[in-house]
Amino acid sequence: MKVDGKPMRTIWVEADGAGCGIIDQTRLPHEFVVAHLKTVEDAAHAIRAMQVRGAPLIGAAAAYAMWLAMRADASDEALERAYALLLATRPTAINLKWALDEMMVALRNRPRAERAAAALARANEIADEDVAINQAIGRHGLKLIEEIAARKNGGGVNVLTHCNAGWLATVDWGTATAPIYMAHDKGLPIHVFADETRPRNQGAALTAWELNHHGVPHTVIPDNTGGHLMQHGMVDLVIVGTDRTTANGDVCNKIGTYLKALAARDNGVPFYVALPSPTIDFTVSDGVMEIPIEQRGAEEVSHISGKTASGRIETVQLTPDGSPVANYAFDVTPARLVTGLITERGVLAANREALAKAFPERAS
Amino acid sequence: MKVDGKPMRTIWVEADGAGCGIIDQTRLPHEFVVAHLKTVEDAAHAIRAMQVRGAPLIGAAAAYAMWLAMRADASDEALERAYALLLATRPTAINLKWALDEMMVALRNRPRAERAAAALARANEIADEDVAINQAIGRHGLKLIEEIAARKNGGGVNVLTHCNAGWLATVDWGTATAPIYMAHDKGLPIHVFADETRPRNQGAALTAWELNHHGVPHTVIPDNTGGHLMQHGMVDLVIVGTDRTTANGDVCNKIGTYLKALAARDNGVPFYVALPSPTIDFTVSDGVMEIPIEQRGAEEVSHISGKTASGRIETVQLTPDGSPVANYAFDVTPARLVTGLITERGVLAANREALAKAFPERAS
Repeated sequence: MKVDGKPMRTIWVEADGAGCGIIDQTRLPHEFVVAHLKTVEDAAHAIRAMQVRGAPLIGAAAAYAMWLAMRADASDEALERAYALLLATRPTAINLKWALDEMMVALRNRPRAERAAAALARANEIADEDVAINQAIGRHGLKLIEEIAARKNGGGVNVLTHCNAGWLATVDWGTATAPIYMAHDKGLPIHVFADETRPRNQGAALTAWELNHHGVPHTVIPDNTGGHLMQHGMVDLVIVGTDRTTANGDVCNKIGTYLKALAARDNGVPFYVALPSPTIDFTVSDGVMEIPIEQRGAEEVSHISGKTASGRIETVQLTPDGSPVANYAFDVTPARLVTGLITERGVLAANREALAKAFPERAS
Repeated sequence: MKVDGKPMRTIWVEADGAGCGIIDQTRLPHEFVVAHLKTVEDAAHAIRAMQVRGAPLIGAAAAYAMWLAMRADASDEALERAYALLLATRPTAINLKWALDEMMVALRNRPRAERAAAALARANEIADEDVAINQAIGRHGLKLIEEIAARKNGGGVNVLTHCNAGWLATVDWGTATAPIYMAHDKGLPIHVFADETRPRNQGAALTAWELNHHGVPHTVIPDNTGGHLMQHGMVDLVIVGTDRTTANGDVCNKIGTYLKALAARDNGVPFYVALPSPTIDFTVSDGVMEIPIEQRGAEEVSHISGKTASGRIETVQLTPDGSPVANYAFDVTPARLVTGLITERGVLAANREALAKAFPERAS
């Protein structure tokens, strides 16, 4: 999408071939900084530190990271080492393992001399596939928005989203945001309520930033607010992303998603999840029981960074000295609360039959 | 309750008679500062700026404020002016109007020369009544905790609470926390999950602070977390406070309460609301439709204050430049989601019949 009028992706091969460029997302929304990844260690750090985040972008970054690894050392040992290093960076995102496995298929049985070039080619394919998938998600989701817009007779469509499943979470377009950008670009009167999404505030910091730079009308709200808005008819539909979708249609997404799904159900608001098929994990059925939930550092809850009046970035402590905190990164929304899954192959019911029918090659 | 071993209330008449002392709650949790209220304007500012907050404490503060007003000028005009000034400080809290009306009854038909003394006497009564009510709430709620503790065979009782319905929100003991303090003081193994409660973070800043200073085991969690905890059996009961309870048993409390009630319902976790009867508003039935929800300033969402590494209190901007925000302060939890109302007269079903039976003198 656009940043100050200039079309960008979130990860790209730099023109001089020195490595990859990324938008350092830990510096948003107050500073726009490009970071340069020259080694697999740079890339592993970028994933771990969440300079790149969002399941699809993590997958693409891991793929490019394998190129950086092979460029430095194309041995079998280096290949295995890079795979293990990258796999350990984030425990929950299924795209990470998917992309790394794709790279292994492309590289393992190839002569060393060809591995770097083959890795770059496959990484570029993975990135381009993500863009194509998101555009397809956008087209399918756009129809849902157009139906609501038609029903409201030009009254404006209000979408609530949680966390950042925007273009910053992918290579381009985003998942939950692809229908929104397409609706906006088509001139539909769309407005987005962006949950701030504590503790890392990706909704306030990233979703609001990207909507703002693309010109989409939006309002940042505390995570506590969505239920009240839905009780008062101020939300027409919810669209969120997902880090992992089970064979049953359960959805593992940023902590707090489940609460919004409950509010949507209680108020008859459609609750959609936008997902590229690589996030479907057909090996897992019951998301609540089976998916391990990443616990992250206490300081993400106890401290927060922002911009001071003088423009400096400062970190401040929010909690009292001596009070422990817990930081569960994700929760699972059971399929029974999901109105539909917006995939690159259409809008599906959130159940095993619909998923297996749409993606038979993955389900078998 | 205790602060560093010293028993305190949240508002008191200063020994030298110069006015009232309060704990300036906007300075918590990083600084413990006592503020001195000498005039009705001081008190109105303290309520408006949320140096004192929480429905019961607002009521007591308004009562003492009427004393400060009468002490300076006991005329009918000053009485009416003080009433209007104080009533306008916060739009939602029903205790504010209740306490001010009580003061008017005590003062209106009294000779000017007696008004200051009568005001002080009635304000002291209102404060003492609040303490007695909270102790009664504590005793009734304690039984619920004891039942769970017995069922868990010493396994520890986990309570989730939202916002601050602690002793800092009242004159002493708190409403939602009164059963918790009593259980803890009795030696029951109790642990509290305190929602941080964006945007003002009263859970992280106030509930955690007071639990910490009283020695109650607790964990601060982002508001997004409660649903996940309940899905995994990590919460035995929810106890929250309320700013206003309707005749039907609908509960208007800090924004986000409704989302926790939905999660409790979905997971079979008991959801209790602790309330002193002055928060019951028998003139309102359907809380969602009838209660106006206060919208507060954008800067409460876009900015936050905390302690820097060097110990300075600093305010930082969280949202991107140019992104609008919305700040609804409360939401309404429908009675159908409430397991019981813990009042000073016992634990009641959340419906008109039970409330009217328990408080016939208010309902008629």
